[in-house]
Amino acid sequence: MIDISLIGRNAKASARSLSITSSIQRNDVLLEIGQLLIEKEAKILEANARDVENASQQKLSEAMIDRLLITPSRLRGMVADIHKVVELPDPIGEVFEQQTLPNGLKVHKQRVPIGVLGVIYESRPNVTIDVSCLALKSGNALILRGGSETIESNRVLVEIIHQALDRHHLPLYSVQFIDSPERHYVLELLKLHSYVDLIIPRGGAKLHQFCRENSQIPVITGGIGICHLFVDETANIEKAVEVIYNAKVQRPTVCNALDTLLVHHKVADNLLTKVFDRLGTAGVSFRLDQSIFRRLEIQPSDIFQPAQTGDFDTEWLSLVLGVKIVSSLDEAIQHIEEHSTAHSDGILSENSENIKKFINRVDSAAVYVNASTRFTDGGQLGLGAEVAVSTQKLHARGPMGLRELTTYKWVIVGNGHVRE
Amino acid sequence: MIDISLIGRNAKASARSLSITSSIQRNDVLLEIGQLLIEKEAKILEANARDVENASQQKLSEAMIDRLLITPSRLRGMVADIHKVVELPDPIGEVFEQQTLPNGLKVHKQRVPIGVLGVIYESRPNVTIDVSCLALKSGNALILRGGSETIESNRVLVEIIHQALDRHHLPLYSVQFIDSPERHYVLELLKLHSYVDLIIPRGGAKLHQFCRENSQIPVITGGIGICHLFVDETANIEKAVEVIYNAKVQRPTVCNALDTLLVHHKVADNLLTKVFDRLGTAGVSFRLDQSIFRRLEIQPSDIFQPAQTGDFDTEWLSLVLGVKIVSSLDEAIQHIEEHSTAHSDGILSENSENIKKFINRVDSAAVYVNASTRFTDGGQLGLGAEVAVSTQKLHARGPMGLRELTTYKWVIVGNGHVRE
Repeated sequence: MIDISLIGRNAKASARSLSITSSIQRNDVLLEIGQLLIEKEAKILEANARDVENASQQKLSEAMIDRLLITPSRLRGMVADIHKVVELPDPIGEVFEQQTLPNGLKVHKQRVPIGVLGVIYESRPNVTIDVSCLALKSGNALILRGGSETIESNRVLVEIIHQALDRHHLPLYSVQFIDSPERHYVLELLKLHSYVDLIIPRGGAKLHQFCRENSQIPVITGGIGICHLFVDETANIEKAVEVIYNAKVQRPTVCNALDTLLVHHKVADNLLTKVFDRLGTAGVSFRLDQSIFRRLEIQPSDIFQPAQTGDFDTEWLSLVLGVKIVSSLDEAIQHIEEHSTAHSDGILSENSENIKKFINRVDSAAVYVNASTRFTDGGQLGLGAEVAVSTQKLHARGPMGLRELTTYKWVIVGNGHVRE
Repeated sequence: MIDISLIGRNAKASARSLSITSSIQRNDVLLEIGQLLIEKEAKILEANARDVENASQQKLSEAMIDRLLITPSRLRGMVADIHKVVELPDPIGEVFEQQTLPNGLKVHKQRVPIGVLGVIYESRPNVTIDVSCLALKSGNALILRGGSETIESNRVLVEIIHQALDRHHLPLYSVQFIDSPERHYVLELLKLHSYVDLIIPRGGAKLHQFCRENSQIPVITGGIGICHLFVDETANIEKAVEVIYNAKVQRPTVCNALDTLLVHHKVADNLLTKVFDRLGTAGVSFRLDQSIFRRLEIQPSDIFQPAQTGDFDTEWLSLVLGVKIVSSLDEAIQHIEEHSTAHSDGILSENSENIKKFINRVDSAAVYVNASTRFTDGGQLGLGAEVAVSTQKLHARGPMGLRELTTYKWVIVGNGHVRE
């Protein structure tokens, strides 16, 4: 029996201690975690092997097992990522929007940690280290709820984090782990609004929906990308094909990979012939709107399937690409409005009016011009690291880095000031 | 039977139109609303008289009736407030955090409206105009759910807003009003996450709790202030008494008014004698911790009552002040941690170390030094107007003005850029 409320209370108390630590102290804990990951490699791999063994017994898919696997080289990758986070500037304490009001009151905002984060995630055990380091670096306490399939690995990783916290005299409760696969604890966590300030789900659409429907704590929803590229009649076709190839093929299993290609009818024949050739070599199969079969004289096959109802509302996460011909920029924008998850959508065009209209009308977290959607990522966009990609409108949109794990307080300094 | 889902769908479509309007167009609508409020004064006052009549019949308190009353002078106040909002800079379209990445990608953030706001409020009909103007100015569509006690007034005010929208060729659905007192519509609104981006409750603690527990849409909770001032042993006593007087007496019914006074024991006798004198003249009564009776040789009376369990967790909203003597700055900070709603808390001190410690340790939306808590207000802190005061950590903290009704999109411009 785990007392979730006690976990919350302890997290909040730890958050107070963390909020007044120095950058150096927080970075030292991170470096210690990195050091311990190397020292305890054998123990980690051993625990992970038990998870893999359990997963095999439960007949999880090869892809799932690969996701939860820790190898020596993946472990070194985790350590390298910690060093990157250590190098990032400390967001805490930043003073901004300083002003002196006409009445002489001095006002500024001061950046502070959010407080207590609850992170609910699946599969990959590196998230345990990754999120813990981002939370600690930004002075936040953390409650982790990992997937049952990695519970052995997570137990050892959290033990390491606790050793690092202990060695640097920070409260162990700064990072807590709900060490049980039972789902009702997630529900209890989502109601803990007196202690937890933010819930970050990391997983599929169902997890996000569950959190949105049951949480009494603000939730960052996101990570689901039905991403579009629109090729207008002025696009550079050669460049377009390479951008489309990259967006679809470079890593098809992630949220910023391309799902639907929209093509202006004036360039459709030329562009699509090249796209089918180029992406076909990578093993991509297509879901084509009906008009394309007639137009390009294609027969339906495994590779060229007619798009079914719902195909343009599907995040493929695989080497499948929906394709539709549109008669205008307006039709493309309208399609995106109706089918996009507002993650990453782009235009390929050489016409500045069309580009401007697309940027202003498409309301997605990331709007692209002549570039692959694969850049929607904290590392790629200069944040150094990423805790989530938000597709909701509040607080942060798109990739969330360290600064997005902070809030601010107003500081108002007077000299006996009273309101008239 | 009102179709809340249809209201949501229409709001979302209107939000798209609003997001591409010009500043001038949006300001023109606001000016038109102001003009119509003057022209239609008789009709507004007549509708409001019906609300007042109903309220009297239902035996609402004098205070409640006063809150819902529109007088010619209050109407002029509403018009003056509109003109203030028109004068404020347009937050939409602002480009910020521009950068060119090492790979040549040009990245910036562009400020955009949030989309669709749902505002649930009680009593004061001026909120209808006030919130509509802030939403329209910031390019957001709005769904209003006012209190049943002002339904007649709200109906006329929304009619006026619709006339103004119509005259300037903007969709009427930009501002919609749930014209029914039935509560289940609020619940339906709170589930409408496909169309509504943000819920702003404006009312008491129960309304905020209801929204937090039932909403599938992000909610800005706030507006509940258990506010503290701590007088340390170095405070200038004369200034402190005036700041305390202002924070408690200037407008006791609002969220940023003082609730609890904490006094360092070394200055307690001197300060409290003066506070009791000065605030007593304004009709303030006190809830004192036990030690004060002995110390200042006071007898319990209507004016000096012993503090009961829960008194230090009460937002008084009236001329009542809790008072407690503490032995140190740490004890004061701890009391605030335990009892504050993280709205507005301050220190009165001439010691820079104590001030620094208080600012860093007290995690409230607004932290004060030698000033009245009454300044936590969008108008007072230079935002020009205010839609709510947030006491949660996400998105915005403290007073929320026009900019806090916006979000951003990432715009990423390449020249055929692909991810390696």
